[in-house]
Amino acid sequence: MKATVYVTIKQNVLDPQGSAVQGALHSMGFAEVGKVRIGKYLELELDTTDRSEAETRITAMCEKLLANTVIEDYRFELEG
Amino acid sequence: MKATVYVTIKQNVLDPQGSAVQGALHSMGFAEVGKVRIGKYLELELDTTDRSEAETRITAMCEKLLANTVIEDYRFELEG
Repeated sequence: MKATVYVTIKQNVLDPQGSAVQGALHSMGFAEVGKVRIGKYLELELDTTDRSEAETRITAMCEKLLANTVIEDYRFELEG
Repeated sequence: MKATVYVTIKQNVLDPQGSAVQGALHSMGFAEVGKVRIGKYLELELDTTDRSEAETRITAMCEKLLANTVIEDYRFELEG
């Protein structure tokens, strides 16, 4: 089974990396770019076929390691 | 218009960050985790309503700044 995890910075938390990219794009002539938010995208292969078990385990991985839930949100998709 | 950009490391390129996360998950008891690949996830607000223009511009941004096309792939979605 394959899991895709998206970790994004919460809406009300400052994203300095996004601001830096926005500034760089502006200085390169991409003036139409508004707010930029940058997150992480993870692909994990899981050696399991039990979908609900996989959901529980991925949630635990996100809570414990993959996301800092103080400032980040996460969501995931399972396939296979 | 909102653009979502996914930047991922090419399949044949080593992903040390992914390997580190895999090792950490194993040591935390998530033994079912196989290969882990980590990429970037970007959300950009674009001040334009022309979809094909936006596609051209986002492609240029990816080629010039957002992705290192030597070792990374990118894809994007537009909405709004």
